[in-house]
Amino acid sequence: MIVSALLTSVGINTALCVLFFTLYSILSKQPSYYEVYVPRLLAEGTSRRRSHFNLERLIPSAGWVAKAWRLSEDEILSLSGLDGVVFMRLITFSLKIFSFAGVIGIFVILPVNCTGDALGEFDVGDLISNSLDVFTISNVKNGSNWLWIHFSAVYIVTVFICFLLYNEYKYITTKRISYFYSSPPQPHQFTILVHSIPTSSRSNISESVTNFFKELYPSTYLSHVVVRRTSKIQSLLNEGKKLGKRIAQLRSDPTQQEYKHRSCFEFFGRKTDLIDHYEKKLEDIEENVRLKQSEASLEGEKETRAAFVSFKSRFAAATAFRLQPSVNPTQWITEQAPEPHDVYWPFFSESFMRRWISKLVVIAVWIVFTILFLIPVVVVQGLTNLSQLEVWFPFLKSILTITFVSQVITGYLPSLILQLFLKMVPPVMEFLSSIQGYISHSDIEKSACDKVLWFTIWNVFFATLFSGSVLTSLSIFLEPKSIPQRLAVAVPAQASFFIAYVVTSGWTSTSSELFRIIPFICSLMRKTCICTDDEFEVPSLRFHSDIPRVLLFGLLGITYFFLAPLILPFLLIYLCLAYIIFRNQFINVYAPKYETAGKFWPTVHNSMIFSLVLMHIIAVGIFALKKVSLASTLMFPLPVITLLFNEYCRKRFLPIFVSYSAESLIKKDREDQNGNTMDEFFDKLVIAYKDPALHPVRNTSNTDSLRSPLLS
Amino acid sequence: MIVSALLTSVGINTALCVLFFTLYSILSKQPSYYEVYVPRLLAEGTSRRRSHFNLERLIPSAGWVAKAWRLSEDEILSLSGLDGVVFMRLITFSLKIFSFAGVIGIFVILPVNCTGDALGEFDVGDLISNSLDVFTISNVKNGSNWLWIHFSAVYIVTVFICFLLYNEYKYITTKRISYFYSSPPQPHQFTILVHSIPTSSRSNISESVTNFFKELYPSTYLSHVVVRRTSKIQSLLNEGKKLGKRIAQLRSDPTQQEYKHRSCFEFFGRKTDLIDHYEKKLEDIEENVRLKQSEASLEGEKETRAAFVSFKSRFAAATAFRLQPSVNPTQWITEQAPEPHDVYWPFFSESFMRRWISKLVVIAVWIVFTILFLIPVVVVQGLTNLSQLEVWFPFLKSILTITFVSQVITGYLPSLILQLFLKMVPPVMEFLSSIQGYISHSDIEKSACDKVLWFTIWNVFFATLFSGSVLTSLSIFLEPKSIPQRLAVAVPAQASFFIAYVVTSGWTSTSSELFRIIPFICSLMRKTCICTDDEFEVPSLRFHSDIPRVLLFGLLGITYFFLAPLILPFLLIYLCLAYIIFRNQFINVYAPKYETAGKFWPTVHNSMIFSLVLMHIIAVGIFALKKVSLASTLMFPLPVITLLFNEYCRKRFLPIFVSYSAESLIKKDREDQNGNTMDEFFDKLVIAYKDPALHPVRNTSNTDSLRSPLLS
Repeated sequence: MIVSALLTSVGINTALCVLFFTLYSILSKQPSYYEVYVPRLLAEGTSRRRSHFNLERLIPSAGWVAKAWRLSEDEILSLSGLDGVVFMRLITFSLKIFSFAGVIGIFVILPVNCTGDALGEFDVGDLISNSLDVFTISNVKNGSNWLWIHFSAVYIVTVFICFLLYNEYKYITTKRISYFYSSPPQPHQFTILVHSIPTSSRSNISESVTNFFKELYPSTYLSHVVVRRTSKIQSLLNEGKKLGKRIAQLRSDPTQQEYKHRSCFEFFGRKTDLIDHYEKKLEDIEENVRLKQSEASLEGEKETRAAFVSFKSRFAAATAFRLQPSVNPTQWITEQAPEPHDVYWPFFSESFMRRWISKLVVIAVWIVFTILFLIPVVVVQGLTNLSQLEVWFPFLKSILTITFVSQVITGYLPSLILQLFLKMVPPVMEFLSSIQGYISHSDIEKSACDKVLWFTIWNVFFATLFSGSVLTSLSIFLEPKSIPQRLAVAVPAQASFFIAYVVTSGWTSTSSELFRIIPFICSLMRKTCICTDDEFEVPSLRFHSDIPRVLLFGLLGITYFFLAPLILPFLLIYLCLAYIIFRNQFINVYAPKYETAGKFWPTVHNSMIFSLVLMHIIAVGIFALKKVSLASTLMFPLPVITLLFNEYCRKRFLPIFVSYSAESLIKKDREDQNGNTMDEFFDKLVIAYKDPALHPVRNTSNTDSLRSPLLS
Repeated sequence: MIVSALLTSVGINTALCVLFFTLYSILSKQPSYYEVYVPRLLAEGTSRRRSHFNLERLIPSAGWVAKAWRLSEDEILSLSGLDGVVFMRLITFSLKIFSFAGVIGIFVILPVNCTGDALGEFDVGDLISNSLDVFTISNVKNGSNWLWIHFSAVYIVTVFICFLLYNEYKYITTKRISYFYSSPPQPHQFTILVHSIPTSSRSNISESVTNFFKELYPSTYLSHVVVRRTSKIQSLLNEGKKLGKRIAQLRSDPTQQEYKHRSCFEFFGRKTDLIDHYEKKLEDIEENVRLKQSEASLEGEKETRAAFVSFKSRFAAATAFRLQPSVNPTQWITEQAPEPHDVYWPFFSESFMRRWISKLVVIAVWIVFTILFLIPVVVVQGLTNLSQLEVWFPFLKSILTITFVSQVITGYLPSLILQLFLKMVPPVMEFLSSIQGYISHSDIEKSACDKVLWFTIWNVFFATLFSGSVLTSLSIFLEPKSIPQRLAVAVPAQASFFIAYVVTSGWTSTSSELFRIIPFICSLMRKTCICTDDEFEVPSLRFHSDIPRVLLFGLLGITYFFLAPLILPFLLIYLCLAYIIFRNQFINVYAPKYETAGKFWPTVHNSMIFSLVLMHIIAVGIFALKKVSLASTLMFPLPVITLLFNEYCRKRFLPIFVSYSAESLIKKDREDQNGNTMDEFFDKLVIAYKDPALHPVRNTSNTDSLRSPLLS
């Protein structure tokens, strides 16, 4: 790829970004799009739909940028919880390392690369006709002493990143602990989930649980709730809820609703008939629900072999969680309970064997999916190669000869297609995680985050490097000795692709995040065709797709900074965009659905360490290839030291993310005992984990009758 | 190697075994060798030295075999604890699997191998001139359908071994739990070791510990003992103890001692002078000890940042152990305390960083040691090759042409030399484990057991297979794809070496275990030259050298049973010998030094699983090499299933070996509370972990004055 092709790509993407920004700053001021652009403020009631029109609404403005810029970390904490803070710190952390690496890369390494002439002279006059390879390490001659500059840069940047990683881990650890200290008593802190409860012929599950825990912890055991299968009731309730809402709408605002309704459902005739029809239907459903609820409470059959067990103190719950309760480790298995509104288990299996097998199956499916996914990637790789394309589609030959078309194809199309394919991945991974046996949204998302991350690294990074068959990529790992050498050949060769990838995938994805394309289109469709539905959900940040994306760019930056430092400015622009845009989204769009209190950071840390070690392996190969074998040998200690550093961090910080220490738990428990609110809290705790589907249905058909009374 | 060479080796070793057995049955009846052959009975006082002579003492008898045979498992449990039972079950377990594999091997596979004629016709007439290779799978023709017999055998034996492994793990688990239930209150069940205690300028270590644990566990905390550095006092005490004993000897039996003494120390002149001299010296030492003890109690400097903390119940101790006590996971690190008499830490480092670094250093040293050790093995391999020997030592040519000499060299000498080298290994590994940061004899021995096991597998099995340079052996693991193929070539080629190894190393080591060569020689030397020393220590079984040896033979049996089934009869003879001899030793010789309650079994289980998977990999390679690619492919699921089985066992049984369940702990605690002996026990518990070196020295110089008053 030559410089002009890259510039074309940059041009297109800059235009797109500007377009998105402009559209956003206009549309976000239109009241009819408030649920797309400021759903959070709308839900909080701080932003009301204003119906009066003024000109200001049509002029793009940048006020939101200033507002987002001024946001402090404490404000993010109160807006989006510790998880939001962790996400923002991931971006600032990346900004810090790539600013540092950028200074070294652009002012030291880039000139060295350009002045080397292994690939031919650097043409200063006609800058844009230079190949991008001139800016990479490939342009430095074999055995050149200039390579020691690259060597030093690798050492310096590694030390700098490790230093930052340590500080960041420490900072988030203290944040996590202080978050715990400052939090009020929460049901999940006092509760554990027990599954694989052994069945006995003499007593049902509920009695077994009571007997077992009363026997073990007579003084601290509080109550329990057996998990029941209520998916049928749940779906009936949802149906009823929708109907209730429709009736309320029809009643409250007759003229508008009637009009709107006629346009869609002309055949229903009169409004009052419609209301009667709906009310009858709703009553049937309510009857059905009540019937099934009483069945569920009476029958033991709907009981699963799992229960939420609550204790009178955090320490007691932690003890019950940490100490294997039963002599048989495959029975009475304990887990920390999630927050009550975070509970989610579409495919919950309560027995040890089933859970284990489903986990194994999911891992197998994940591997197969990851391998099969390579096929579209290979097609994409073919597209970057014009001559290959001409061989495959001979009829396109005439079009491909036009310079602009060929530049678009080589510079932009491939990564766009790849990106569209990749959009599919997070939902698939989330689904896989949900059948793996996790019991909460947060755990599912955390596991999906890991899956998406390694999927992306494998399918975007490695598959692109060894562009081609699945077997070639896999075979590398069967010959560990040759890994550095083969990486050293493949990595610099793909530098231009990844620079373009940062521009297309990075810039566009971030600005479309601001513009919220998909919700915008959905909103448009709702408005034009389907009857309005006043309810909207405030979305939450999808950590499992956004964290892996930033981490992939981190991997690209770290591995390429000394090979092709030209990637760094584009990366920095991406990070700056992400910095402003995500802050804005935290203010206006996203509300947290749950709080893991920073549990995503270990994933970030591991990914950074992986990137560093990969960079070292590539460096070993590059220096060997460039015939500076001393540098190659001297590079060996670096990955070892990095891994030791990681091991130390694991010992020093990771336990804090697994469970809180006895010291903290006991301190919090004592604080509570001094207060007077605990009796009230325990009353709430007893019903906190009751399945919302089993709450009694009131006999009136008003809007609220079927709204699940979650813990207030 | 031909059959006659093997028979020579078998002959020599059978003769050696018979010699050892005869010598043992005569010598074990001589009162002067009681401390070598029945030290345990002597110490217990059940066997008294009889001075009258009778003829029976000189006639070899086999009564001890019957006695050992009749020993029940409960008797072994009471004699040698659960660890002894685990060791015996390892032998019976191996006997079971190799009896089963032996039937298949000898009656099915061996005839198939012999009737194949890939290496030439099997000569029934002149049996002993056949090459041993005729009995191996190498003799079956490529692509032969007979190979499916081997294939089925691999599947059947794998299933059988897994079935036995599961039952055995389950059996030992129940034994472990019932051992716990039946044990009286023991100090280590109520105690944890805390290290990396943070220092503060305001309070010393002891105060910090009290404050910290009284704050956290006010109702269950009992007491603590800070660990002090007392190696100097300990060595003074040992010296004093020896002197005290010498004086007592001189006083008690004047005539005999005087006579005996004169012969050695003529120059000392009169006995009374000698006693005076010794007593003066002893008084000096006592004074010195008292001085240093008072120093140690006063100074804070001798305090380490570690302490034994005792609680009022087992459950409280387990809670304190399992819950990370402090917010910082690198401080206040908890460990389960060992039994008081099991505490041992010559190189104890109390800070987190130091322990971690020493562990890393030990692992590095272990790797270097393992690699350097290959050099003598290579020499040994050279010896098995006559022509190589003639090239190295041309002057030996004339001797080597004698048939008997060449047979001894090829059949016996190589494994004997290897065995002598290997004798060095267990003490070295024990030393390495002791500086790794373990705090008890049992942990050190358990870790040394693992180290010796993997060392042996690597240095005996793999190094012999790829007889030659270190680099060849290592390079295999850098090309994982070619492992099955290279193993398939190397493993059958070394069949005859390993058959001979079983005979020489296995048979001889077991019968010399009965004869106790080294203690016998020491005893002889003591008798002839140095003045008698009435004290002797009852030895304990060295698990870290004996378990890996049996496991290595298990590995050989499992990997070779379908390749060269001829190995199985020799292995079975070895196991039968070991069965009888170790039972006899448990009765007469060994007394347990500590009780891990079966913690060695997971090592055994893992080693068996490793052997199985290795066997499967070899089978994959062999069938591919023999051009039965379908069998090779169908072999793939077997290692996967085996590893899944292992994973299930890990989940099902391993947690029980790590710590006891809440259910068991609470049940035991309640039982104790109902009894009335707990107050007395707590009084003992408070002083149980006091360093014996700091107990006050009495001012008389009788024999007992310096004997450390351990917990009775």
